[in-house]
Amino acid sequence: MRTLISEVANNIDKEVEIKGWVHRIRELGKISFILVRDRSGIIQVVTEEKISVTVESVVSITGVAKKNEKAPGGVEIQMKNMEVIAKAAHDLPIPVNQDPEKLSLDAILDHRIISLRNPKILSIFRLQSNILKYFAEHMRSEGFTEIKSSKLIGTGTEGGTGLFAVQYFDTKVYLAQSPQFYKQAMVSSGLERVFEIGNAYRAEKHDTPRHLNEYVSLDIEMAFIESEHDLMDIEQRILKTIFAGIKQDNQKELKTWNATVPEPEDIDKIPRITHDEAKEIISKETGKRVFEINPEGERILCQWAEKNHGIDAVFVYAFPRRKRPFYTYPIENHKTMSFDLLFRGLEITTGGRRINEYNMLLESIERFHLDPEGLSDYIQIFKYGCPPHGGFAIGLERLTQKILGLANVKEASLFPRDRKRVRP
Amino acid sequence: MRTLISEVANNIDKEVEIKGWVHRIRELGKISFILVRDRSGIIQVVTEEKISVTVESVVSITGVAKKNEKAPGGVEIQMKNMEVIAKAAHDLPIPVNQDPEKLSLDAILDHRIISLRNPKILSIFRLQSNILKYFAEHMRSEGFTEIKSSKLIGTGTEGGTGLFAVQYFDTKVYLAQSPQFYKQAMVSSGLERVFEIGNAYRAEKHDTPRHLNEYVSLDIEMAFIESEHDLMDIEQRILKTIFAGIKQDNQKELKTWNATVPEPEDIDKIPRITHDEAKEIISKETGKRVFEINPEGERILCQWAEKNHGIDAVFVYAFPRRKRPFYTYPIENHKTMSFDLLFRGLEITTGGRRINEYNMLLESIERFHLDPEGLSDYIQIFKYGCPPHGGFAIGLERLTQKILGLANVKEASLFPRDRKRVRP
Repeated sequence: MRTLISEVANNIDKEVEIKGWVHRIRELGKISFILVRDRSGIIQVVTEEKISVTVESVVSITGVAKKNEKAPGGVEIQMKNMEVIAKAAHDLPIPVNQDPEKLSLDAILDHRIISLRNPKILSIFRLQSNILKYFAEHMRSEGFTEIKSSKLIGTGTEGGTGLFAVQYFDTKVYLAQSPQFYKQAMVSSGLERVFEIGNAYRAEKHDTPRHLNEYVSLDIEMAFIESEHDLMDIEQRILKTIFAGIKQDNQKELKTWNATVPEPEDIDKIPRITHDEAKEIISKETGKRVFEINPEGERILCQWAEKNHGIDAVFVYAFPRRKRPFYTYPIENHKTMSFDLLFRGLEITTGGRRINEYNMLLESIERFHLDPEGLSDYIQIFKYGCPPHGGFAIGLERLTQKILGLANVKEASLFPRDRKRVRP
Repeated sequence: MRTLISEVANNIDKEVEIKGWVHRIRELGKISFILVRDRSGIIQVVTEEKISVTVESVVSITGVAKKNEKAPGGVEIQMKNMEVIAKAAHDLPIPVNQDPEKLSLDAILDHRIISLRNPKILSIFRLQSNILKYFAEHMRSEGFTEIKSSKLIGTGTEGGTGLFAVQYFDTKVYLAQSPQFYKQAMVSSGLERVFEIGNAYRAEKHDTPRHLNEYVSLDIEMAFIESEHDLMDIEQRILKTIFAGIKQDNQKELKTWNATVPEPEDIDKIPRITHDEAKEIISKETGKRVFEINPEGERILCQWAEKNHGIDAVFVYAFPRRKRPFYTYPIENHKTMSFDLLFRGLEITTGGRRINEYNMLLESIERFHLDPEGLSDYIQIFKYGCPPHGGFAIGLERLTQKILGLANVKEASLFPRDRKRVRP
C-alpha cells in the first residue's frame, strides 16, 4: 500500500512504499541520495545501490522510514527496492529541480508541460485552487447562488470592440468578455444574489505584464443595494475570507514565494477615495497634473495608501461616466456609482451599481451611441421589473499574481493565452 | 430594514418590510391578495386598498405579520404601505406565475430572460448550484486540486472533428471539447489528482433532447489507478456526496419536480457489466441482436438494472477500442479500460484509464491514423515520466436533467446553445 510522502514521518522504523517522481539524484562516494516528489511533498531516499534511473521518471520505492536530522524534513527512507513505473527521457528541455528564477518567462511558458512540474511554479496553482474554494464558500455563506452562463454571445455588452469571433455553424458569434448580461438577468430572475466563476475573453492586442486574452473572472451580482459602497463592503468581507483561508492552508506556498496575505484588520483599513481625489493624490505625489489613472498611477495610489493607511490597497469610486460602460448608474456631475479596487499596485476589481430603470437605460444607450437592436435581449431584463443592483469581478490570475508577488500575470495562468501564445 | 420572506414567520404580530416581485394579484370583493416573491420564498399580502401595480413589478411592502392558516405557508402580511421600486410593463411575453408545463420548450427558451422568473423553472438552477458545490467539496475531501485550463486550443485531442473555430488575431484556434489534454498534464505535473469545472464545446449538428453544443463538464483525473474500476469507485463516492447534499438542501426543489435522488445504499448497488454483456442484455430484452448501445439501449439497460438490482443506473465497461479515443488504455481482445455510467436511461459519464506509456501512445496515434505533429505538445506529457492514471467527466446539465426528470437537457442550461439558438 502506498504511503504519501507527508505521512512517512508517522511511520518511523516501519517499511513504507512511496510512489512519485525522481526529483534529484546525488551521489556521494558509494551512497546515492534520491529526492522523490509526490503530491504531498519531497523526501530523501538513501541507498548504496548504483542508481541508473533518469530524473523525472515515476518510481515506486519500498524501504524503511528513518529519522535523520540532516535529511530535508528530518526523515529519510533507507531503500530496499525501486521499481520504475514510467521512465523519463534524458533530454528534459528545461530543468525541473532548480529555482525557476533562472529561466526566462518565455522558456517557462514555451515548455509549460514541463515547467509546471517545478515545485515552486506548481505551488502558484495549489494556492490559486484555494482562492476558488474560499471565494465560492464566502459567496454561499451570504446567500449567493452559483450560476454558469454561456460564453457564446451574439453581441458584446461592453460595446462590441475587443471580441473574438467564433464560427458557429452558419453564423458568427463572439466569446463573452464578461457574464455581465447574464448576471443581471439572474438577479432579475429572482435569485437576487449570484456568483459565477468562468472564463472571460478580451481580444486586446497589448502585451503587458498585467493582461491576458483569456482569464478566469470571479463575478458577483446582487440586488437591493444602495450604492457602490455596499459592493466595496462585501468585497472586503470576501477578501477577508480568501486571505484567512490561504493563511490557514497555504503557508508552504506563501513561504516558497516569500509572500504574505493582509490580515483581516488591514482589509478594514482600505481607504475609499473618489476618482477626483485619486487624481489629486497622484498629481501631488508626482508633481505632474494627471487626467486619468494609468498603471503608474495605480502603483502610486497603493504606495500612498500603504504610507497613510497601513495597507497596500485602495478603493477608487465615483468614476466619470465617460470612463465606465453605458449600464453604470449615473449620479450628479457626470459621475457614476462605480469603483475599482487597486491591490499592491494593480487593479484587481472593477464594479458598480447598474442602471435598473428601463427608461434611464434607454437614455444611456442613446447617449453612448449604441444600437438598441443589438441590446434587445438585454433591455428585456429591465422592462419587466428589475430591482436596484450591482456587482463586480475579481480577476483570478491578477489576485494570484499580487498575493505571491509574481512579475507577470501570465505566471498565474496554467496555460496562458496572449497575442502570440495559443499553445500548449 | 428588509426582512426576507422566509423570516416573516419569525416576526408574528410585528411590523416587517419585505422587498420582492409581485407574483400574482387576486381581488375578492374589497380585499386584494398579493403574492410577493423574493429569493427566499413567496408570501401573501392582504390589503383593502385598491392595487394598481403590474405583475412582476418590484415592490417594497411594510405591514404586520399575522398567522393565517388559510394563507400559503400559514403566514400573511397585513399591508400598511407599498412602494413600487421598479414597475414592470404590461405586456409580459409569457406568464411567470403559471405551471410552465403549459408552455412549449421554444417559448420557454425564446423568452429565457422572463421564463427564468418562473419559480418552477428557476428551481432547476437552485438545485444545479448545489451539484457544483457538492462536487467540488467531494473532490477536495479526496485531495484533488481545482484547476482552470484554457478553452482555446490549437487542435482537438479527440481527433479534430466537431470543433468550433475561433478567429484569434491572425490565426485560427478551436474551442476545447474537453480539458482532457490539460487534466493529464496536471496529473503529470505532480498534482496527481485534479478536477475542473468548465465549459466544453461540441460542434455537432444533431438536435436531440440529450445534446447541447455548449455544456458544463465536471472533470476529474487521478494518478496511480489500476483500472477503470478505481474510477467507478470514486464516481460512486462523488454521487453519494452530491445526492446527500441535494437531499439535505433541496427538498423544496425536488418536491416541485416530484423528484427524488437515490440513497447511498442504492448507489452501492449500481451493477458493472461489460460492453459485451450490455449488448447481450439489450438483445435479450428486445429480441433483436444489437451491435452497439444507442439511446434506446441505454434506456433498456437502466430498466434492466432497476428490475434486477433495484437502481436505475448501470456502469458499462470494457468498451471496444474502436469506440474509444486513441488515448484510452487498451487491454486484450481489442478492448479498453474504459466505462460509461448510464443513469435513469441516459449516459451521464464517460471515462477510463489513459495510456501513460510513451511508446504505447505513439503506437496508438499511428493506429488511429492521427497526426503526431498536431499532438506534439500532448506527447510531451508522456515522454518525461507520467504515472498510470485515468479520469472521467460528468455532464452537469445531464445530471441535473436526470435528477429532476426534465424532458430535455436544454431545460437544465441557463442559456442553452444549440444548432439554431445563440441567444439570449
